[in-house]
Amino acid sequence: MAIVTLTTDFGSLYPAAMKGVILTVDPHAHIVDITHSIPHADIRAGAFALYSVVPCFPEGAVHVAVVDPGVGTPRKSIVISSGGQFFVGPDNGLMVPAALRLGDMQVYRITNMELLDKVSATFHGRDVFSRIGAYLSLGMQPEDVGEKTGDYVHLDLGKVELTENSISGEIIYIDDFGNVITNIAGDVVLDRVQFGKTVMVCGADVPFMQTYGLVDKGMLLALIGSHGFFEIAMNQGSAASSLGVKNGDMLNIRFC
Amino acid sequence: MAIVTLTTDFGSLYPAAMKGVILTVDPHAHIVDITHSIPHADIRAGAFALYSVVPCFPEGAVHVAVVDPGVGTPRKSIVISSGGQFFVGPDNGLMVPAALRLGDMQVYRITNMELLDKVSATFHGRDVFSRIGAYLSLGMQPEDVGEKTGDYVHLDLGKVELTENSISGEIIYIDDFGNVITNIAGDVVLDRVQFGKTVMVCGADVPFMQTYGLVDKGMLLALIGSHGFFEIAMNQGSAASSLGVKNGDMLNIRFC
Amino acid sequence: MAIVTLTTDFGSLYPAAMKGVILTVDPHAHIVDITHSIPHADIRAGAFALYSVVPCFPEGAVHVAVVDPGVGTPRKSIVISSGGQFFVGPDNGLMVPAALRLGDMQVYRITNMELLDKVSATFHGRDVFSRIGAYLSLGMQPEDVGEKTGDYVHLDLGKVELTENSISGEIIYIDDFGNVITNIAGDVVLDRVQFGKTVMVCGADVPFMQTYGLVDKGMLLALIGSHGFFEIAMNQGSAASSLGVKNGDMLNIRFC
Repeated sequence: MAIVTLTTDFGSLYPAAMKGVILTVDPHAHIVDITHSIPHADIRAGAFALYSVVPCFPEGAVHVAVVDPGVGTPRKSIVISSGGQFFVGPDNGLMVPAALRLGDMQVYRITNMELLDKVSATFHGRDVFSRIGAYLSLGMQPEDVGEKTGDYVHLDLGKVELTENSISGEIIYIDDFGNVITNIAGDVVLDRVQFGKTVMVCGADVPFMQTYGLVDKGMLLALIGSHGFFEIAMNQGSAASSLGVKNGDMLNIRFC
Repeated sequence: MAIVTLTTDFGSLYPAAMKGVILTVDPHAHIVDITHSIPHADIRAGAFALYSVVPCFPEGAVHVAVVDPGVGTPRKSIVISSGGQFFVGPDNGLMVPAALRLGDMQVYRITNMELLDKVSATFHGRDVFSRIGAYLSLGMQPEDVGEKTGDYVHLDLGKVELTENSISGEIIYIDDFGNVITNIAGDVVLDRVQFGKTVMVCGADVPFMQTYGLVDKGMLLALIGSHGFFEIAMNQGSAASSLGVKNGDMLNIRFC
Repeated sequence: MAIVTLTTDFGSLYPAAMKGVILTVDPHAHIVDITHSIPHADIRAGAFALYSVVPCFPEGAVHVAVVDPGVGTPRKSIVISSGGQFFVGPDNGLMVPAALRLGDMQVYRITNMELLDKVSATFHGRDVFSRIGAYLSLGMQPEDVGEKTGDYVHLDLGKVELTENSISGEIIYIDDFGNVITNIAGDVVLDRVQFGKTVMVCGADVPFMQTYGLVDKGMLLALIGSHGFFEIAMNQGSAASSLGVKNGDMLNIRFC
């Protein structure tokens, strides 16, 4: 028995087809939904979601990830092995930041069609990735899916630019609280500003604090979120609505 | 241990009460959510959801389905056995298309009240169907719930009309991508039009393609979805919003 | 193996980190989502959700509950034992109504830091409560988390006022159907009005019925919901939208 996680932009219904396939192959698989609410086709948001949670999972976990606008086109399918965990999904960069977070990664192209049943043109999440994921859960080795390759699509969480008194990065995820999560690593910020100081973001002066409840209800704050990245939040409110920002927007932090 | 799936229009919270009941009766049941986002009281949408996923599940799976606007009124409760899988829910047609997809079906009316504890007037999903589902998961035979019957509510996925150069059907489901799924079987369309040709739907000329990524981002296309039905979609966008259509609307396909 | 339930206001993604932690500590835990859709920071709505489902769970169930606007501030963390079930979460009253529903409760302050790994300032759901919940699932006794205490935050589901021909209470939860659930216990209403009679709520005369389907589609009704509380609903529609009410509003029932 292994853990098989699912990360998709499918919303409801389609993940259930994936679970049926997984449990048909491995009736003892322990399926965990990471999220099915990735904004449609937003590969970078999916990459962040997976990146943010993989350190919480044990060795042997298999992560099936499907944010796949290219399904049915000639994009490839891959398995990645890293730090004792496995990733299965499209070769579009989605799984790369999470895999690199766990250590050196090995990439295998899925070419062993004998493992698969009928494959539709529109739902490789069900017909390819879930089935391969369940075989990995049963103990199949990643090299059994096909040859190891160095030719795969890379993706990072976006560039961060530093000047003497500012950091510029990108908004990569807005969570269900409306917290605005950037690609700026917490350590980079902590090297330059202390908790309790004020920073300027999106034209507003906001305090840089350890946690949400240290400012009054309805007030903005800046913090290092539980995922390790710089985040703008509002205590008991939505920073994203208040600031009018969205995934993919650039964000500049100035130190006063 | 068996799989027990749940298909409801409950949203959140109420499914958890069902899971508590199931795990109290069968602590080893493997519970899988199909969806809890069926539009409220839309029995046909629920029937489609269940129909679309049952082929992915193995023999022995028990499907508890509750889209039940008649709860507490004299509508009956039934168990259906078909193709080695089981269905438990209200006698309103919800489970019929899925059961027929798996083969010949046997219908049993739930009349053995000794199996049940206190039954509320408003939540048979918790008080009747989950409990019966868990007993089936433990290996109880369907005939133990009550007598086999030929008197049950039938439901199909709606009529499809064919002319020489058009097909008319009904929209039965709009998924979380905004893909517009009809009740028109893929084979009926494939007999009349080839991939790469253009069809006219809702006053628009759209290409009939194998998969989403074969048209440009933001463009409409027609395809046979992973569920096997004719579907109108937009690459990385919502066809339903673009076309202004909703569940239950009629849809006509003209071949040019 | 025990059941570990999760009740949060997190939406998606963050619950998956909790599940990873739980399954790392107890690979056989049976995780059940109660809901992750509690309105943000609405402790009373979270308390109602947990209260409404705990009677459906068996002895030994561990309920991890996190509606926690005070995370990272000096608010305490507690374990409650009641009726053979366990609760883990912040000391803000969230778990008190559910625990009291099961019987006499014992409260333990979480002070044994040796049980924990690194604790962030913003995500005790992952770093504290999930880990402690998994240890309880493995059979750890509640007294192992720290000393028993009588000093904890109490919370009830709000005051109810009775006069000769009216009852006043508070809206504590609006479910995904738009049903308006109050804090008025069903028994209090049943002592004063019979099914089939008309009551006046929010300026409207509505029939007090056993279940939804006993009024016409689109009509309001009053009933005792499956949770045991007085509720205003609309058959196949949203009473909350129709009445323009929200969580926390006062609601008066007049008997004609």
